[in-house]
Amino acid sequence: MVESTQFRTASSGRRPARHSRSTRRPSRMSRIPQRGKVRQPIQSRSVSDQQIRFTEGERRLRILPLGGVGEFGRNMMLFEYGNDMVIVDMGFMFPLDSMPGVDYVLPDIAYAKQNRHKIRGVLITHGHLDHTGAIPYFIRDLGMPTVYGTKLTVGMIRDRLDEFNLTRHVRLSEVDPDDTLQLGVFTVTFFRVNHNIPDSIGIALHTPIGTVLHTGDWKFDHTPQDQRPTEFGKLARLGMDGVILLCSDSTNAERPGYCQSEREIEQNLRLLFSKASGRIIIATFSSLVSRIQQIVTAAADLDRKVAISGMSMEKVLTTAIKLGFLKVPRGTVIKIDEINKYPDNRVVIISTGSQGQETSALGRMSRGEHRHVKIQKGDTIILSSSPIPGNERAVTNLMNNLFLLGADVVYNKLFDVHASGHAYREEMKLMLGLVRPRYFMPIHGERYMLVRHAEIARQMGWSDKSIFVMGNGESIEINHAGVARLSPTKLDIDYIMVDGLGVGDVGNVVIRDRQVLAQDGMVVVVAPVDKNGKIAVEPDVISRGFVYMKGSERLMGEVKSLVIRILEGHNLSDIESWAPVRNRIRDDVGAMLFKKTEKRPMVLPVMIKV
Amino acid sequence: MVESTQFRTASSGRRPARHSRSTRRPSRMSRIPQRGKVRQPIQSRSVSDQQIRFTEGERRLRILPLGGVGEFGRNMMLFEYGNDMVIVDMGFMFPLDSMPGVDYVLPDIAYAKQNRHKIRGVLITHGHLDHTGAIPYFIRDLGMPTVYGTKLTVGMIRDRLDEFNLTRHVRLSEVDPDDTLQLGVFTVTFFRVNHNIPDSIGIALHTPIGTVLHTGDWKFDHTPQDQRPTEFGKLARLGMDGVILLCSDSTNAERPGYCQSEREIEQNLRLLFSKASGRIIIATFSSLVSRIQQIVTAAADLDRKVAISGMSMEKVLTTAIKLGFLKVPRGTVIKIDEINKYPDNRVVIISTGSQGQETSALGRMSRGEHRHVKIQKGDTIILSSSPIPGNERAVTNLMNNLFLLGADVVYNKLFDVHASGHAYREEMKLMLGLVRPRYFMPIHGERYMLVRHAEIARQMGWSDKSIFVMGNGESIEINHAGVARLSPTKLDIDYIMVDGLGVGDVGNVVIRDRQVLAQDGMVVVVAPVDKNGKIAVEPDVISRGFVYMKGSERLMGEVKSLVIRILEGHNLSDIESWAPVRNRIRDDVGAMLFKKTEKRPMVLPVMIKV
Repeated sequence: MVESTQFRTASSGRRPARHSRSTRRPSRMSRIPQRGKVRQPIQSRSVSDQQIRFTEGERRLRILPLGGVGEFGRNMMLFEYGNDMVIVDMGFMFPLDSMPGVDYVLPDIAYAKQNRHKIRGVLITHGHLDHTGAIPYFIRDLGMPTVYGTKLTVGMIRDRLDEFNLTRHVRLSEVDPDDTLQLGVFTVTFFRVNHNIPDSIGIALHTPIGTVLHTGDWKFDHTPQDQRPTEFGKLARLGMDGVILLCSDSTNAERPGYCQSEREIEQNLRLLFSKASGRIIIATFSSLVSRIQQIVTAAADLDRKVAISGMSMEKVLTTAIKLGFLKVPRGTVIKIDEINKYPDNRVVIISTGSQGQETSALGRMSRGEHRHVKIQKGDTIILSSSPIPGNERAVTNLMNNLFLLGADVVYNKLFDVHASGHAYREEMKLMLGLVRPRYFMPIHGERYMLVRHAEIARQMGWSDKSIFVMGNGESIEINHAGVARLSPTKLDIDYIMVDGLGVGDVGNVVIRDRQVLAQDGMVVVVAPVDKNGKIAVEPDVISRGFVYMKGSERLMGEVKSLVIRILEGHNLSDIESWAPVRNRIRDDVGAMLFKKTEKRPMVLPVMIKV
Repeated sequence: MVESTQFRTASSGRRPARHSRSTRRPSRMSRIPQRGKVRQPIQSRSVSDQQIRFTEGERRLRILPLGGVGEFGRNMMLFEYGNDMVIVDMGFMFPLDSMPGVDYVLPDIAYAKQNRHKIRGVLITHGHLDHTGAIPYFIRDLGMPTVYGTKLTVGMIRDRLDEFNLTRHVRLSEVDPDDTLQLGVFTVTFFRVNHNIPDSIGIALHTPIGTVLHTGDWKFDHTPQDQRPTEFGKLARLGMDGVILLCSDSTNAERPGYCQSEREIEQNLRLLFSKASGRIIIATFSSLVSRIQQIVTAAADLDRKVAISGMSMEKVLTTAIKLGFLKVPRGTVIKIDEINKYPDNRVVIISTGSQGQETSALGRMSRGEHRHVKIQKGDTIILSSSPIPGNERAVTNLMNNLFLLGADVVYNKLFDVHASGHAYREEMKLMLGLVRPRYFMPIHGERYMLVRHAEIARQMGWSDKSIFVMGNGESIEINHAGVARLSPTKLDIDYIMVDGLGVGDVGNVVIRDRQVLAQDGMVVVVAPVDKNGKIAVEPDVISRGFVYMKGSERLMGEVKSLVIRILEGHNLSDIESWAPVRNRIRDDVGAMLFKKTEKRPMVLPVMIKV
């Protein structure tokens, strides 16, 4: 029996006090299928901090992040035990600055795909795209496993699948936070958490080696917009029963204190609404359903009509209303082309574009290109979100344009019109204190956020050996004695880029070329060669994104002369021998252009036999 | 006499109380040359907020920002009266996100160049590149006017001119803050301000129509690092004597309260230094000479050696030491290759790269590529600066890498290790209260910062008509009755881009091409045509930055077929008729590729007669 295999540990006795060994294990656990032979312990090696000797072949739980650890977005984690696997979340992230032209970046699912026969289900914590956005791209590759989520989550996933014409093919299963699922060896229960979208949950995965908690995105809000606070009772109960591992959201691990309640934001918005003498245009993420509810309620109470602008906004709201997660008093919502029928001080426009996106509704308004809304003096524009790192510049441009048009702009630095959906440091402490896991893995965030979250756990008494700060593709293994170690094998995790219709057709080479092209443009040299291996006609030189062609005729003439000299110096009759000539043209022309301009355009030699 | 010309005003009586009309005018003012004829008042028009009827031809002071207003950086202002002109500051800025490959952006000096015969001098407020960086590029175009600055400012400009081999050609003149200059009709005096580089000054320009104050970059620091606080006395005296216009730095117009003193930062750094058990690596801007002094002093007091890494850092420090602005106790500084001769806890390394620049010293350390410094566990890395908007992402990457290498990273969010060099809102109020100008022009900052600064003045009693929130190329005119208006003419101000050795050789067309190339790469179609106007050989299709070429052979084949069809549909014997064929190839191939891939590469058709 694998469970009985002896092994020594290096970390026993270091876990925080009062961790109960009698982990609540459903009775099915004894019926797990047993594959793999019992082997001899692998040869003893020097044991580093988190490398504990495991017996080869013994059964263990593997926890493997495929995205979202050491970066922000594309959250996806894999839990594997023997022949069973569940996935938690499948999100995308927005491209890094270094990925020009890329639309989204997906997790690297290669390992999950290879083992897709083991997948027993996909659990989704909430409806945001950094947790759901990869589903339509990968669900086929994973063998169409069932996707589980709460009502609103499933509704939003369904909308997205519609866009991909996949709705009929994917099994979506709605769960209630009080449900229990059996997925292979895994018994799954849930607990409500707060976030800035309703119906968010965390996951308790009861496995043969103990219970693992995955928080999803969370904060504690005692007065949330939907009146459903985090289920503290369930968390405390899970903690009492014993949790072997907690995986918890690290987004705000730098921020001291507690996150503001959505209720405070609502009060501030009401204050602003009641003070504004003209139109109110409020931009936020379409996914912040709770915020949008606040806006709608405040507008209705103050007898303002609400118009919506922006495709994604309209779509999300339609779904949220249909499913009962957004309550709109009758007669409150009007069409965007009806706003001029009402006095300015009776109108609220909810719009996309809080991140300064150029093509968004607010982006178009800021450039005077919106069909129905012309910004005017007296408009109060509220940006009810914080800039995502990297978007600061775009938000600044947006604000500059809006101010130029005479509007007043209110944003979070001036007045609290946005609350984060993620726990602050004191909340993180409370979560750790309630759950009291033996091991702790900070997830969701840049490396430095994970480090800060780990620091909190250390301050609270967890030892270095019981904290796992990891990268994507690294995994931990926990055996039946409840001992965890960093797995000695690490998967290579790539950025899977979506560009237009292509998924993964744009890789590092293409991206590197785009970076070079963006920096200094390119110079194409076309050299026709005749049958005798001689220059057929004078080479042609064309550039784009390098320098003004006008005024650079002399430079281009020098390039031509150089190319002719190179061609004349080689025997070109054999087409097989052209590769080194091309390289020579690339290198010499590149060097010459750098010397003359200190720019490094991409040089592209094209030789054709005519 | 122009001075006696009558005109009515729309704003008289609205200025703040106690503005003295007896502006301190040096006696020379009565001897100003009189050009231009006295003409009839221009035809009466409807007067908008800031358009007051001026008499055509009457003498007036013109204040014209050529850069730095509505944006951050490339500060340059022009003050013109009759036949005399002075320039205040000539800086550059870093390129916007939308300007790939560009090194710097310079102000647009076209107007100054046209009128260079009028230029009586260039006054520089302090040694930072956003106030000095354009000098070497433009000083020739402006007819080599004398450049005035304090000792350190002149020293830093000289270093920069050296790099351009210009030192011998440019007249640099050192001024003391108590000096008085006569530049044409302008009498110039100065007042010390605080900033994070020593020897910073503001400028009082005594003109025939009154005194104008330009603050430069400033904050009030009662305990500055160099023990030389702002000259409040001079400011108050100027205010008592009467100031017609104040132009004041708006950078922190959003931040409530007062800026921290450099002294507090010094104390915090000492605390960190004394706690660190290993090496300290502290990154900051090389231009923050005051900060570097604090670091050196703290290190010396705690018996740590200081090594410098980063070219710009070494250069600035050499100059600052030579000129007496940086005091280094004997034996404190060691060479970077000597750090391993000392125990880790006896070493401080001052480095460039606090903005996450890849090629900087800290950037190389973070990737393990620095020749002398390998980051190790126990290192404390201090980022003593704030990310410039747009650099947040790069700073995050840097921090992630440093954490991965096991270092501890301290930055401003965690602990105050950096103070801004710019006044906060309460300081701005004090400046306005001391100077009590009749008119106010917020400068230095994004549009929204200027608006916030204007808001402060409004709260303090200035009327809308006495506040000028402007853009580059807009100017105000003040006549001898002390009435100011926005000039009806606005100059077009371009971004003058520096890329490699070229200044202005990269313009909007080139930048737009780079943006397109960055997004989806390019596809080059080469079509050789023979003497009879027929396709000579099969067209060649090459792409870069579009999709992987491998795996896209079919797509490229389809492009070839399409190109052949287009070529066959046209008579190509006349080379003059090729332009429409090329356009057709560009459009049709572009449309086909978009349909198949939803990407929009640049399509570049090259036809050659062979």
